[in-house]
Amino acid sequence: MRILLMATPVAPLGAGKTGGVTLHIKNAAAALASRGHHVTVMAPDGSVLPGVDLVTLPGTCQPSLASEAGEEFYPIPENSVLGAMWHAALARQSDHDAIINIAHDWLPYYLTDFFQTPVLHMVNMTDVNAPTTAEIARVSNRYEARIAVMTQAQAERLGGVKDPILVSFGLDLSVYEFNSDGQGGVAWAGRISPEKGLEDALAIARDLAEPLIVAGAVDDQTYWTRLTDEFGDSMDYRGFLATPDLQSLLGQARVVLQTQKWHEAFGIVTIEAMACGTPVVAYARGANQELVIDGVTGFLVTPGDKAAAAQAVSRIAGIDRAACRHAVAQRFSLPAYGENLQNWLDQALSGQRPKTA
Amino acid sequence: MRILLMATPVAPLGAGKTGGVTLHIKNAAAALASRGHHVTVMAPDGSVLPGVDLVTLPGTCQPSLASEAGEEFYPIPENSVLGAMWHAALARQSDHDAIINIAHDWLPYYLTDFFQTPVLHMVNMTDVNAPTTAEIARVSNRYEARIAVMTQAQAERLGGVKDPILVSFGLDLSVYEFNSDGQGGVAWAGRISPEKGLEDALAIARDLAEPLIVAGAVDDQTYWTRLTDEFGDSMDYRGFLATPDLQSLLGQARVVLQTQKWHEAFGIVTIEAMACGTPVVAYARGANQELVIDGVTGFLVTPGDKAAAAQAVSRIAGIDRAACRHAVAQRFSLPAYGENLQNWLDQALSGQRPKTA
Repeated sequence: MRILLMATPVAPLGAGKTGGVTLHIKNAAAALASRGHHVTVMAPDGSVLPGVDLVTLPGTCQPSLASEAGEEFYPIPENSVLGAMWHAALARQSDHDAIINIAHDWLPYYLTDFFQTPVLHMVNMTDVNAPTTAEIARVSNRYEARIAVMTQAQAERLGGVKDPILVSFGLDLSVYEFNSDGQGGVAWAGRISPEKGLEDALAIARDLAEPLIVAGAVDDQTYWTRLTDEFGDSMDYRGFLATPDLQSLLGQARVVLQTQKWHEAFGIVTIEAMACGTPVVAYARGANQELVIDGVTGFLVTPGDKAAAAQAVSRIAGIDRAACRHAVAQRFSLPAYGENLQNWLDQALSGQRPKTA
Repeated sequence: MRILLMATPVAPLGAGKTGGVTLHIKNAAAALASRGHHVTVMAPDGSVLPGVDLVTLPGTCQPSLASEAGEEFYPIPENSVLGAMWHAALARQSDHDAIINIAHDWLPYYLTDFFQTPVLHMVNMTDVNAPTTAEIARVSNRYEARIAVMTQAQAERLGGVKDPILVSFGLDLSVYEFNSDGQGGVAWAGRISPEKGLEDALAIARDLAEPLIVAGAVDDQTYWTRLTDEFGDSMDYRGFLATPDLQSLLGQARVVLQTQKWHEAFGIVTIEAMACGTPVVAYARGANQELVIDGVTGFLVTPGDKAAAAQAVSRIAGIDRAACRHAVAQRFSLPAYGENLQNWLDQALSGQRPKTA
């Protein structure tokens, strides 16, 4: 099939701000290509995605809904790049057998009805914007199998969304080197923004009297200033790292912390760490509950209980690093992802007519 | 032709808040019907429009852009009635030869490209929301003659909008009784909201040592409280009046004041007053510059110059009331409106293909 993948309108692909989404798009394109599909990615101007058929559009990027959680309205900016992308998708829809949207935005869900080519949606956040959540629910009620989620925890946070298809994410394991040693420090990686809860990880590391190794793009400058003021001495900040360097950093760590304040739809860093053999100590909230097998690939602790997290870190030598790598190879590999995506496409395209109307 | 008229999503038709838009829709439907077209109006649930084929949809109404002028984003609420209306329009587009949008909202302009049935847009505000203005400009550049404006002054405030068609509004003159006497007081009518500038009219009447007769729905409660605190004694407030009562009030007045702070796209109250024989003293800003013939149907004064306005009121006996009625009968009657609408439809439908693609 000829598949059009619609990327996020929040920033160009390849920018630090969209590290997770870029990997999401890149791996989805690779997984679909490995199943014999021709994939085109549409994204904002300035996007970089080597080896992929890429179409970019000009316009104003969307403000991040992740940082504006709970807004009453979905905001459309002047000369929206999201609007331009979907006009371009309309113009070329007959060149594609399916359109897969990976943007968590009201507009693509709303526009589902306006396309002859089936539009499928991969939801990669939870309930961060009420108009968007309601529109996802509407599409799920009107069309069979058009909505996919990345974890069950995510589906539970999208209350009105009916029968979403579970499509777990997958990694290209050849990019992640298994590090059987991993005698290094305590690490944290992610976009640096309040909902990601870096301050809890910093406090846990301080409890353990060791520095926290941090990698990620600064998304919220005010928050960052506050963190460096409070924890500057005990933070070993490495900046935003592309995957080759990030996986090396994660593999050298003896444990990776995941201390989110919000309900993550998925935890890419969690499976990246495990792919390198590094166990994860995570708050038992959102996706991490499904990604970390407590006592096997890391430990789950009560969200917010920093003492319990520090205690779990002190027991981390009891986790078999090979078991971490093995868990990812089984459940979150690129072939597994390709199979999940194919099953979803098959279901959505066989039931492509509206349920009503 | 079978024409679908899309109303505003700000409030149900017939509510005080939408007095102007309700009249706009009602008269457009009547003018089109008089040309032999079958007209269906689509509007929010709760709308009332006797004698017209009306389809209503449930959902959340839009916040008023008029009161939120200058917002950086166009806001989409949860379960938007605007969204529901345009999904319904999509489902029934093959029942119509043309769709005419009278809502000043980003979404209908954006969706123009998604319809096989030509979508035409009657712009009835000026540059109150940057994303919407930019989208109007886009449609005007992509399609021939799809954008209509109500006055040249309005077109000038929509800078990037290319070659809009002038479609002046029209009144059913049988509803407005010519009052040759008009020896009453000084009146003001309109939606009570800061941009309408009621406080200037109140100050002018106070200068003249007479009460101001006021009719209109209170749209901004804080503003209203401020006005009643400052001008309560000199304000003779009659509430929101339907057209039969409003025209009687306007006809009895010896002059009607129009003191807007913003650039009105059109001045319905101005031509309603003149239709009853009552001259208008207006700030020379926006549409009133084209509706009031200075020295013939009233006086135009420098915007904000309340002393000049009071002075103009004192000279109002020099205006021939029959000339006011005559000016409306010539330029702003229902037959004239029907002819304007027909010319627009002819141009838009003959040039319905995109200019580019």
